[in-house]
Amino acid sequence: MTGFASAFLAVDWGTTNRRVFRIEDGAVVATERDARGVTSVAQGDFAAEVVGMRGRFGDLPVLLAGMVGSTIGWREVPYVAAPADLAALARGLAWIDARTAIVPGVSVLSDTKADVMRGEEVQFLGAVAAGLVPRDGLLCQPGTHCKWARVDSGAIVDFTTAMTGELFALLRGHGLLAAQLQAQVTPGAAFRDGVAAGRGGDLAAVLFGIRAAKLLGRRDDADAASYASGLLIGSDVGARLAGVHRDVHILADAGLAELYSIAVTANGGTAHVVDSHAAFVAGMVALAGMLP
Amino acid sequence: MTGFASAFLAVDWGTTNRRVFRIEDGAVVATERDARGVTSVAQGDFAAEVVGMRGRFGDLPVLLAGMVGSTIGWREVPYVAAPADLAALARGLAWIDARTAIVPGVSVLSDTKADVMRGEEVQFLGAVAAGLVPRDGLLCQPGTHCKWARVDSGAIVDFTTAMTGELFALLRGHGLLAAQLQAQVTPGAAFRDGVAAGRGGDLAAVLFGIRAAKLLGRRDDADAASYASGLLIGSDVGARLAGVHRDVHILADAGLAELYSIAVTANGGTAHVVDSHAAFVAGMVALAGMLP
Repeated sequence: MTGFASAFLAVDWGTTNRRVFRIEDGAVVATERDARGVTSVAQGDFAAEVVGMRGRFGDLPVLLAGMVGSTIGWREVPYVAAPADLAALARGLAWIDARTAIVPGVSVLSDTKADVMRGEEVQFLGAVAAGLVPRDGLLCQPGTHCKWARVDSGAIVDFTTAMTGELFALLRGHGLLAAQLQAQVTPGAAFRDGVAAGRGGDLAAVLFGIRAAKLLGRRDDADAASYASGLLIGSDVGARLAGVHRDVHILADAGLAELYSIAVTANGGTAHVVDSHAAFVAGMVALAGMLP
Repeated sequence: MTGFASAFLAVDWGTTNRRVFRIEDGAVVATERDARGVTSVAQGDFAAEVVGMRGRFGDLPVLLAGMVGSTIGWREVPYVAAPADLAALARGLAWIDARTAIVPGVSVLSDTKADVMRGEEVQFLGAVAAGLVPRDGLLCQPGTHCKWARVDSGAIVDFTTAMTGELFALLRGHGLLAAQLQAQVTPGAAFRDGVAAGRGGDLAAVLFGIRAAKLLGRRDDADAASYASGLLIGSDVGARLAGVHRDVHILADAGLAELYSIAVTANGGTAHVVDSHAAFVAGMVALAGMLP
C-alpha cells in the first residue's frame, strides 16, 4: 500500500524551477519553490533530491511531473500519445520504486505535425478534473514555449507549442533589435498595437518594422519591448483562434495572463483565466486518486 | 566638372563588407571586395578610406551607397520617401565635396507600416534601368534582412523588409534549436518540406516542431537546418506572394537565389534570377549619368 490517496508529495519539476507541494486529503498544506530545476541536478543526484524533499515535507509517496521525466531528467518516460486523459497518464507512470513515480508527457504525431509536452498535461487535465475549465475547449499555457491544448470529453486530443517567449528572449538578447527591447513589457497601447500588427503572422517583416519605426521617429524605444511582445503574442493567438474555439482558458500567472487575455479579446475571442498552480495540484490529486 | 560621366568609382559600402568598382564608360574595369564595412571604420576615418580607394583605383569621382550613409556611417543622409526613382536618388545625394557623394536610402511610412533600405535601392533601380527586370514588378533581395520591393513605372513605390536571415542566425546561434541547426542548408527535400510548412506563417509553432520531431524520431538532425531555413524562407515568400505579383525577380548570389526560387515556385510564383552586382553597377552608372 503506497498510500497516495491520503497524503503525498506532488512535484512540478521543470527545466529551471521546481515546486513541491505536500498534499493531504486533496489540499495543499505546505509548499516550496526553488531553482533546483533538472538542469541544476547532476545525473545520479535525483534520488538524493527526493530523499531531501521527504526530509523536509514528510516521508510520503512522491509523484513527479515535468522535465524530470525527460532525457535531461531522472529517467526518460515515454510520451503518451494524444488523445490522452488522466487515466492514460496514470497507466503511463514510470515507477522509480513502489512509492515514487514520474508522470509521462504527451505527444501528438501526424503526417503534418509533431509536438510534445511534459508537465503541462497535468495542469491541463487537472483544470478539467477540478471543473476550472470545461471538458471541451481550448486551453492555453503561455510561457517560453506556449502550449495550446484542445480538450474533448476531458482528454487532450491535440495541442500546439509556439516558442513565443523564446523568440522574444532571442530578439531581446541578441541581434538588431536587442538594444531597443530592454524596457519592461506593459499591457498598454503599444502592446495592443503590436497585437493588431502581429495578427496576420508575417513576424519576420513586422519585427523589422520596430527598427524602421525608430529610424523614422515613429515610435519611442520605451514602447518597443511592449510592441514586440504584442507582435509575438498577437501572432500566436491569431494563429490559434483561427480554429473553432473562441473561448480560451488561460493557465498562467497574472502578468502573462493579462497579456494573453488582451490578445485573445483583440482577436475576437473570450479569455478566461485559471490559476495554474491550482490546476497542477488538482491534476496531481486526481492522478493520486487513481493509484493503489 | 566632376567628370562622373566618363569614369568614377562606385562603392557598395555595407555594414560588414565593402565592394569598390572602377567604372569607365559604363563598364567595370577593376573591382575589389574586402571586410571594411562601416562597422570596421572609425568615425573620422572615412575620408582617409576614400583617399585610399583613389590611391588604389585612380583619382576619380566617388559615388558611395549603403550603410555609409547611415547613423553608423560617414554622414547620415536623409531617406528619400517612396515612390522613389533614380532621379529622386540623384536629387537626394549628400555631397561630401564636389567629387564625393553618398546615395540616400529610401523609406516608406504610412499609418500601418514603417520601413527603410540603404543600398538595396541602387540594385533595385539599377536592375530596372538596365532592363534586367521589368519597370513594373516584384523584386526581392534576400539576405539577413530580406528586401522586397514593388516597382511601378520604374520607381520603388512600396517595399517590405523581413528579417528572415537574422531570425535564422538567432535560432542557430542561441536557444533551444541551436544544436540541431548546425548543418549546412541545402536545397533538397528537407528544405522543400520546410517551405511547405512555413507557408502559412505561424513561425513560432512550426519552429518548435523541429524540436518535437527530434524527440519523436521524426526527422534526422542532419536535415533540421535545411528544414528550418525552408520554414523561414517559405513564410517570407508566402506572405509576399499573397499580393498581385506572381513573377518575382530575385537579386542574389547563386546559393540564396536557388533557395528563394524554390520557395517562390512552391508558392505558385515564377522566379527570375538577376545578378545583383550587375544591378548595382547599372544603378550607379545610371546615377552617375545624371550628375553634372
